[in-house]
Amino acid sequence: MKIAVLGTGGGGRAHAARLAELGHDVVVGTRDPEATLARTEPDMMGNPPYKQWLADHPGITLMTFGDAADAAELVINGIDGHNAVGALSAIAGKLEGKVLVDYAVPFVYNPDVEHPWPTPWGVMPKLDPCDTDSLGEQIQRALPGTKVVKSFVTQEQEIVVNPKAVGGGDHTMFVAGDDAEAKKAVTGLLKSYGWTDVLDVGGIVASRGMEMYAHMHSVIGFALGFGNPFGVKVVR
Amino acid sequence: MKIAVLGTGGGGRAHAARLAELGHDVVVGTRDPEATLARTEPDMMGNPPYKQWLADHPGITLMTFGDAADAAELVINGIDGHNAVGALSAIAGKLEGKVLVDYAVPFVYNPDVEHPWPTPWGVMPKLDPCDTDSLGEQIQRALPGTKVVKSFVTQEQEIVVNPKAVGGGDHTMFVAGDDAEAKKAVTGLLKSYGWTDVLDVGGIVASRGMEMYAHMHSVIGFALGFGNPFGVKVVR
Repeated sequence: MKIAVLGTGGGGRAHAARLAELGHDVVVGTRDPEATLARTEPDMMGNPPYKQWLADHPGITLMTFGDAADAAELVINGIDGHNAVGALSAIAGKLEGKVLVDYAVPFVYNPDVEHPWPTPWGVMPKLDPCDTDSLGEQIQRALPGTKVVKSFVTQEQEIVVNPKAVGGGDHTMFVAGDDAEAKKAVTGLLKSYGWTDVLDVGGIVASRGMEMYAHMHSVIGFALGFGNPFGVKVVR
Repeated sequence: MKIAVLGTGGGGRAHAARLAELGHDVVVGTRDPEATLARTEPDMMGNPPYKQWLADHPGITLMTFGDAADAAELVINGIDGHNAVGALSAIAGKLEGKVLVDYAVPFVYNPDVEHPWPTPWGVMPKLDPCDTDSLGEQIQRALPGTKVVKSFVTQEQEIVVNPKAVGGGDHTMFVAGDDAEAKKAVTGLLKSYGWTDVLDVGGIVASRGMEMYAHMHSVIGFALGFGNPFGVKVVR
């Protein structure tokens, strides 16, 4: 399948690499390809420069957000939460009629805190939107002609693309969205990643719970310690 | 142990009955015992009148919130979320130095909606506090001399007291709080209920994630269908 991954961060790289490995035709979108390729320093999360990563992953092509979306049948949104609605709205026409998987968490970081990620000592980023709205719903409202599916968001993307790395893969992934066929397509993609338990939790409104789970995911991660990946299994 | 359960709803009843069965000396607190015993109709959740329930559970004594807290070594808060801080603050002296387990979700119901519980079609109650604060933290701030432990909140109370009813009991319960000894006491109580996997997720600040998980719990429950209890297992 022709699949576009929007965003060049660690999550986007994990999906692009895995999809290429599975034989898909993968394009990656970025705001400004020249600027992305010109970077020579690791990004804020410590990922190596994208040019280097791209050289290690032949067959993956970098282009603008719009060109990548235009080239694909299915699009994965890996643009960070607070830029997602703006960046996706700007290419709405290219996303028309397509399935868009969104895994962003709408964290708002406090620029006054040096290390703004959630920490065991209580500095936690805020979610906006939260509780009575969600980023998944905002994206669906901004792109009424696109079939938005919220998924992947309850897990690190390295585990999303390789669930068997935790507990032999016996844990649960969730999908939510208003279009049943789109959820079926994303469920198929997840099964090709190795997921055996994909639970459809309803309409795009269920993005609220999936995004708000971020704090729970963080504290479980702190409890187990960094570098100890984990999954969550819905036990019936 | 002398244990007080504050609140006469379904959750409080589940704990009181199970604790009595385990041989504890159980007292139940209510705002106005006479009014509670005078009710002849089922409550808003369809539970039978408390007087009838009490007759079926000999050995459990009903008293005021303050008298119940005063009589106990460990106190379980089953007062609904939006009344909890007020009701507990009013008996702060009786809770001084004690372990208080809180499992309330701070749902704010919309009185304009006839059936204000979360529903598959999108009417969801709002959480207040949420994200940057939690009910667990509010209670701990209101009762600085009490050792507040947030727990039980990620599960239906009928399953909390009987985890083996789901998947043979192979799922996870969480505890959070600022006092390690208090968390140890609550973990012991959970093990006596049948829990084998109790995960300490850190300080009382972790109540945020535990309370915000309520929306995720709801949508998973809708997906599986009413009457299909489930648990969540942290797979390492």
